[in-house]
Amino acid sequence: MKPIPLNKQELNALITKMPFNHHLGLKVTRVWADGITLECAILDTFRNGLGTLHGGVTATLVDVAAGLATIGFSGGRAATTVELKTNYLRPAVHGKVHARSRIRKAGKTLTFVEVEIKDDHGHLVATGTATYMTLEGGFPGVKG
Amino acid sequence: MKPIPLNKQELNALITKMPFNHHLGLKVTRVWADGITLECAILDTFRNGLGTLHGGVTATLVDVAAGLATIGFSGGRAATTVELKTNYLRPAVHGKVHARSRIRKAGKTLTFVEVEIKDDHGHLVATGTATYMTLEGGFPGVKG
Amino acid sequence: MKPIPLNKQELNALITKMPFNHHLGLKVTRVWADGITLECAILDTFRNGLGTLHGGVTATLVDVAAGLATIGFSGGRAATTVELKTNYLRPAVHGKVHARSRIRKAGKTLTFVEVEIKDDHGHLVATGTATYMTLEGGFPGVKG
Amino acid sequence: MKPIPLNKQELNALITKMPFNHHLGLKVTRVWADGITLECAILDTFRNGLGTLHGGVTATLVDVAAGLATIGFSGGRAATTVELKTNYLRPAVHGKVHARSRIRKAGKTLTFVEVEIKDDHGHLVATGTATYMTLEGGFPGVKG
Repeated sequence: MKPIPLNKQELNALITKMPFNHHLGLKVTRVWADGITLECAILDTFRNGLGTLHGGVTATLVDVAAGLATIGFSGGRAATTVELKTNYLRPAVHGKVHARSRIRKAGKTLTFVEVEIKDDHGHLVATGTATYMTLEGGFPGVKG
Repeated sequence: MKPIPLNKQELNALITKMPFNHHLGLKVTRVWADGITLECAILDTFRNGLGTLHGGVTATLVDVAAGLATIGFSGGRAATTVELKTNYLRPAVHGKVHARSRIRKAGKTLTFVEVEIKDDHGHLVATGTATYMTLEGGFPGVKG
Repeated sequence: MKPIPLNKQELNALITKMPFNHHLGLKVTRVWADGITLECAILDTFRNGLGTLHGGVTATLVDVAAGLATIGFSGGRAATTVELKTNYLRPAVHGKVHARSRIRKAGKTLTFVEVEIKDDHGHLVATGTATYMTLEGGFPGVKG
Repeated sequence: MKPIPLNKQELNALITKMPFNHHLGLKVTRVWADGITLECAILDTFRNGLGTLHGGVTATLVDVAAGLATIGFSGGRAATTVELKTNYLRPAVHGKVHARSRIRKAGKTLTFVEVEIKDDHGHLVATGTATYMTLEGGFPGVKG
């Protein structure tokens, strides 16, 4: 039986139980047929020494946009990152960044997801990929 | 003329001018002949939904351990991440994690760095690599 | 002045001067506004021990589809691979595979390219990315 | 029960049943406690348009050195590449290249391997990583 994907409200409720995601103020703004869009405000504490969005925050957004898509589309199964790759294309400075994830393959064990991160003007800031491994059992806090 | 690498005190002073690194409480604990060791306490706000260290924090440590080595060994030249890759091997739960970076090639434009992240017991938590691009001019806050 | 991209005939002429590409029988079948499509027949010598297309051939196709796009769109400037990443999604067994590259950023020094590899039925076999560095001077065999 | 790793003769016999590896003339020269060394002669047909070892051959060596370590140390279980990453550090031109793989984690499902590729003078040509997934059943041609 095909799982029922989590909706936007359920994913945002899940974020409140994920301490680092909650700490960064991440928010799912849309659920698509193949992934999600995750939003992150560029707070001053998220900057690097050059004053632009820190590469670690960008990598986190790739991880989370991919992870929430994986968890959401499996109907709330627990999953863990196997590997994460980010390419940095343009610095982001003002406003928000938007991470759009697309599941390219959802296997029994592994899910492969691509992510694009854009600024408020639609300029491409970074692209990334993640491989997630689905674990036995449901995600803590998701009723299945 | 070969640049004089930044020492531990200079690198930790630099961190205070890098908002996200400072926000996470990152600290250089040792400077080696080919890289540095960076320390991060596993605070409760740094956890994911499974209660372990968030993959985004781990990726940030790869980025920062590689970046501080690149900046430090160039004597304080500004640099920016080109690409970042992390492989997750074991969850980290308690105490601190320690990211040891090793510069494998420092070219005129690009620097390639490998990073190992271990927990307090020396167990390998993750490995990663980063390619950094050196920019014109010194790093803000570093006198050259 | 914006360079004039190499056309299909020029790219295929270039392949004859690239020994390994020529050895594998690679062929550019189309030039797009943002990249190229490269074709590779799945010869019996290109298989792995399981009888499917060898991962090394797949990685080569990512490299070459990205590289020919980089060289072609720069009007024939020499370039070298900085880093190459491939994710394997489905085995390819029969017929040909088709590698479609898309330049996502062409900077002064670095070019970042994404590649999708599909089989004859349009099924996604692999995706990959490459970062290329443009070198001084033209590519051997390309008149500029 | 811990599997008995394949020895050098068994791995080289296995290569003869892997068409692309056999076609490239790859040869295991040593089995270590944590991986293998694989040797590849830089034939003229293995060059790129600049006359150096083609990045696709280098990526293939990362894949094969990691894969033979994974298959060998599991006592001959079949495995397939999940993802492959290569960083290119120096061109290789003459003689042979030597790919040394090290298994960093061998899990029930996934094995993570690091690879260093050096030329005959011990200069680092490239480093890479691979994630392999172990499949059900033995590898074709390995009696278990």
